[in-house]
Amino acid sequence: MLTFMKTSMSFASDNYAGVHEEVLAAIGEANIGHAPSYGTDPWTIRLTTVMREHFGDDAEVFPVFNGTGANVIALQAMLPRWGAAICPSGAHIFVDEVGAPEKVGGTKLLPVPAPDGKLTTELLAREAWGWGDVHRAQPHAISISQTTEIGTCYTPEEIRALSQYAHERDMSVHMDGSRLSNAAAHLGCSLKDITRDAGVDVLSLGGTKNVLLGADAIVVLNPDRVDGIDYLRKMNLHLASKMRFVSAQLLALYEGDLWLRNASHANAMAKRLENGLVRGGVETVQPVESNAVFARISKERADRALRRFRFYPWPTEPVVYRLMCAFDTQPSHVDELISLLVD
Amino acid sequence: MLTFMKTSMSFASDNYAGVHEEVLAAIGEANIGHAPSYGTDPWTIRLTTVMREHFGDDAEVFPVFNGTGANVIALQAMLPRWGAAICPSGAHIFVDEVGAPEKVGGTKLLPVPAPDGKLTTELLAREAWGWGDVHRAQPHAISISQTTEIGTCYTPEEIRALSQYAHERDMSVHMDGSRLSNAAAHLGCSLKDITRDAGVDVLSLGGTKNVLLGADAIVVLNPDRVDGIDYLRKMNLHLASKMRFVSAQLLALYEGDLWLRNASHANAMAKRLENGLVRGGVETVQPVESNAVFARISKERADRALRRFRFYPWPTEPVVYRLMCAFDTQPSHVDELISLLVD
Amino acid sequence: MLTFMKTSMSFASDNYAGVHEEVLAAIGEANIGHAPSYGTDPWTIRLTTVMREHFGDDAEVFPVFNGTGANVIALQAMLPRWGAAICPSGAHIFVDEVGAPEKVGGTKLLPVPAPDGKLTTELLAREAWGWGDVHRAQPHAISISQTTEIGTCYTPEEIRALSQYAHERDMSVHMDGSRLSNAAAHLGCSLKDITRDAGVDVLSLGGTKNVLLGADAIVVLNPDRVDGIDYLRKMNLHLASKMRFVSAQLLALYEGDLWLRNASHANAMAKRLENGLVRGGVETVQPVESNAVFARISKERADRALRRFRFYPWPTEPVVYRLMCAFDTQPSHVDELISLLVD
Amino acid sequence: MLTFMKTSMSFASDNYAGVHEEVLAAIGEANIGHAPSYGTDPWTIRLTTVMREHFGDDAEVFPVFNGTGANVIALQAMLPRWGAAICPSGAHIFVDEVGAPEKVGGTKLLPVPAPDGKLTTELLAREAWGWGDVHRAQPHAISISQTTEIGTCYTPEEIRALSQYAHERDMSVHMDGSRLSNAAAHLGCSLKDITRDAGVDVLSLGGTKNVLLGADAIVVLNPDRVDGIDYLRKMNLHLASKMRFVSAQLLALYEGDLWLRNASHANAMAKRLENGLVRGGVETVQPVESNAVFARISKERADRALRRFRFYPWPTEPVVYRLMCAFDTQPSHVDELISLLVD
Repeated sequence: MLTFMKTSMSFASDNYAGVHEEVLAAIGEANIGHAPSYGTDPWTIRLTTVMREHFGDDAEVFPVFNGTGANVIALQAMLPRWGAAICPSGAHIFVDEVGAPEKVGGTKLLPVPAPDGKLTTELLAREAWGWGDVHRAQPHAISISQTTEIGTCYTPEEIRALSQYAHERDMSVHMDGSRLSNAAAHLGCSLKDITRDAGVDVLSLGGTKNVLLGADAIVVLNPDRVDGIDYLRKMNLHLASKMRFVSAQLLALYEGDLWLRNASHANAMAKRLENGLVRGGVETVQPVESNAVFARISKERADRALRRFRFYPWPTEPVVYRLMCAFDTQPSHVDELISLLVD
Repeated sequence: MLTFMKTSMSFASDNYAGVHEEVLAAIGEANIGHAPSYGTDPWTIRLTTVMREHFGDDAEVFPVFNGTGANVIALQAMLPRWGAAICPSGAHIFVDEVGAPEKVGGTKLLPVPAPDGKLTTELLAREAWGWGDVHRAQPHAISISQTTEIGTCYTPEEIRALSQYAHERDMSVHMDGSRLSNAAAHLGCSLKDITRDAGVDVLSLGGTKNVLLGADAIVVLNPDRVDGIDYLRKMNLHLASKMRFVSAQLLALYEGDLWLRNASHANAMAKRLENGLVRGGVETVQPVESNAVFARISKERADRALRRFRFYPWPTEPVVYRLMCAFDTQPSHVDELISLLVD
Repeated sequence: MLTFMKTSMSFASDNYAGVHEEVLAAIGEANIGHAPSYGTDPWTIRLTTVMREHFGDDAEVFPVFNGTGANVIALQAMLPRWGAAICPSGAHIFVDEVGAPEKVGGTKLLPVPAPDGKLTTELLAREAWGWGDVHRAQPHAISISQTTEIGTCYTPEEIRALSQYAHERDMSVHMDGSRLSNAAAHLGCSLKDITRDAGVDVLSLGGTKNVLLGADAIVVLNPDRVDGIDYLRKMNLHLASKMRFVSAQLLALYEGDLWLRNASHANAMAKRLENGLVRGGVETVQPVESNAVFARISKERADRALRRFRFYPWPTEPVVYRLMCAFDTQPSHVDELISLLVD
Repeated sequence: MLTFMKTSMSFASDNYAGVHEEVLAAIGEANIGHAPSYGTDPWTIRLTTVMREHFGDDAEVFPVFNGTGANVIALQAMLPRWGAAICPSGAHIFVDEVGAPEKVGGTKLLPVPAPDGKLTTELLAREAWGWGDVHRAQPHAISISQTTEIGTCYTPEEIRALSQYAHERDMSVHMDGSRLSNAAAHLGCSLKDITRDAGVDVLSLGGTKNVLLGADAIVVLNPDRVDGIDYLRKMNLHLASKMRFVSAQLLALYEGDLWLRNASHANAMAKRLENGLVRGGVETVQPVESNAVFARISKERADRALRRFRFYPWPTEPVVYRLMCAFDTQPSHVDELISLLVD
């Protein structure tokens, strides 16, 4: 029935891509006999060791099922019931999670328009005020995405400036790292450079968008900034009973360099695509700093390409299309897409 | 590192057991190229077909990550904001989900003490009153577990009596089916006999406790009784981006008879264990109607057996231990456990 | 239009009674020019002084609109997001607030059947367990009502035993004091004797049921046991803008002895009613320890009396009726009711 | 003790003002004997009649304690759990209620920057999209304030345009009417002209800011657009037990023309203040359309005036001060303030 899918390829989303073979192998290897449930298994314990190698000795890791869970639980654990988090108005947590941070997590979000997807201290200042005023949800956190929704990357210096501004005002720093690997690959940084060493307190690590089957994790980089994540993870429906299979996925990705290999490849494919489009006279909207290309494409050409590859218009700007590359995007796919978009 | 686990076996929980090889194979087969995310993939579509073969033509299926998610979202979708669900006071949703139904789902639970874990219409009547009174959370649902927390099974007639009582009072019927397969195997019934045909409106299907890696589903048997599950699943952090891999697991289990083979085997092992214990003079607390044996065991003997196999005391009655069998429990394991518990 | 009401009297509820003239006078006296809003007015400041005279030097007072607000906000401020409070299964917070503690406050309630409405350490022990288990809502509070829903009073010793048990297990003690004045009057105790000195940490003070127009307060007796009430009061919709008029009511009641005069009178009327009923052969269900009489009355006699006075059957036991006395119940009313219910 | 307050006057807030004598008299008149609690009293019944005279025959009224309660409950009753409401980014519900709409009501707010405080269809269009997308909180309501936070008024035509736009997209229209009377007085309209007849579905009526002690109401103008308000009011802690005293306040205000007299007077005082300031060379920020004047004042002059009258800077623009007039502001107060602010 599904044979036609075998050669399917798309530029629709990194969620359209499948699972890396090394990840499937790791799941199979974890399937040996019985193991304790709910996180006391050897794989989850080993995951803490691996995360501490990446992020430092006091990092704590809480595997969850997906990025929405990581974000909502992380923010809830960082904030009192009367707290608020400042974020860009285009942030996934504000736009794409059906209000879960507010409705389920009880987190007020204070969105700030950010033209290139990135917060700055000037933008933070618009909402960073009113502490002690009982009428105002208290801004005790900021949330940034690395990469941003539009594929741009914060430099370590940019993150550090935000963190310093935040910490001086008793605000914690959350990073939605669903494409953190792509950012690290683009910047040539370690994961630690752009998180803990730049002042990030709590990280949604990312995983599913980078070749996992369905796994993510909250990585607490500064344990003083959270409270009760173990209870909150259960309460928010994200405590995996057979957690070893979630942790085994994350181990496959982060124990070696699979995270970097995949991200580097996807980024390179995006760069190849950008180059081809620009050479062909197609305008790109943002500098390509990860695995996403945002391009202005005429409807006629887009429709022609859509007969071969699936991809999506970007909702806020109709003539702009988002073209995502993945770990399994091949140069031949990219070149074929270019030829369809550039006549 | 983990070789010692290869021969591990326990009677601790069906969550300690691993994944059936057919399930892993199905995940691998789903890993072909790109596929649409969030449930529009061919596997999820096929899952609806399979579920309708089991449960009837208007069944709707919503894959989620785990049973807690299925329960909380199902109850929320069945009730208005001011609603309540009547359940046994020992129900998993009341006791073991850190208050998630109340805290995240906003569902008031009205617990009724039920000595053998089963609701009856007499027990329901204690809380089924007060409709129209604005001071009372409105009891518009009941929730039962099949099997119950203590391993007993409702007969189809028992469920039908509850459903009739509920429907006559405009209450919907939810079933937590985390061990539904074990109940069907024990009763010699189809899945439909003890759900839709017995008046159940919404089912938490079960999966992880029966050889899946991490998957469950809400199966809506009576679509008139729910509202907005698609939004609520996303809002409650349970919309899988690469849903094909969740659905592929459920297909592996429910498309053929894997669900039944596993459950029958586990039940048979529990029966063998019960027989051996009773022959050896060990008292069991409940008739064994699934894959669980509850037995009164002296601490001395329990400690001796615990050196070989892991299992747990039952929290509400200290001298009672719960012994769970799984798809991979072997007769030799059972006999060895019996020999350790019976001197 | 409403003249017929002038002579109205009922035994329905202390909420049917009106406002004491001294309270109306106090409101009028507070209506002088402009005053700061949201609690920085002189009346609210004075209220803190008065409450400290009653409850000790570190008491803090947070005026709110009603008792439901006081209860829900108090419990929320006493518990982490994953917390639970143990209460009698007949408690107002469990039965009569449409699930507000759970649905709005996020507080899991663990109800324990309590035949005479009162918790004991034996009853607490049924739910006081499981700390550290992420599957269990963490029982970090208990909530008792003084008087109970069925009009009984805890003695100071009984409260002290509960508080000691609770504090030894890191559980805080909440008291719903909607009829605290009646209890103090019955016991011949000060308000402090049966609250702070008996180990109560947070008190819902009571007011509307004792001659106020619409006012209550959370009185924090042990500030170490709460967090963020000022924010939570606003968040839960109970921050009065013209708070002086709420505080002026509470001052009228608690600055002098109006609270005691009213309660003593209502209690005396209940005692007179009990005596008359018992003499006339009517069985009362509980010893009368406040302003409520619970009596078994034949439907025929009840209907006869209901033509003259309004009162209600008690929902859990159909042949039992609750007869409430208020500050304005006159001996002649009581005697007339007795004559209608006896022979 | 409080005699100094007798001559107090401020331009700080209409919440600093006291209660009109006619309102106190009405409370006293309602204090006759016993009356049914929770809204079945004659005053609350009469209030429905009065509201239908104002708003039409199918209006329904739900008295509550304050405006925050009215707003949060109204929006919750208008929206499904996955719903969102579009509002100006300066709206009281977004800025000044500590996140209560989101945290307690579960309502996602979609704020749109609105320079003069008023939404337009162009501004609505920025967030009015994405129906059917499970990732997006579904925008099924809009919320506008009359007057706006900065004292401007929507004309009936402006409201009608917004309502038409909303209704065409299955969005309901909520109006926060905390200063509705001031708007009606300014526009020379009836209350109905700028609410029901302009397409408003649900109204937070307003009361406390216009001479009441502490009362507001949700007025449902289009009953098809709400669900379960009676339960939601109780659940959200706003069901007054002695409701007659809340309703009596609202009757005093809205049965005759007290609402209009007060508002007209306050508006006239604001106009007098504006005229005096402008004549004196002080710049006002908005045209004065209600009882608020926003003026740019040097710190030196503001400090001089603050020694005599209390008023506040406007948080978002430091050199701007808000000067509020109330029912009891006298021409002499205005003239004295002018003299202090002008050279």
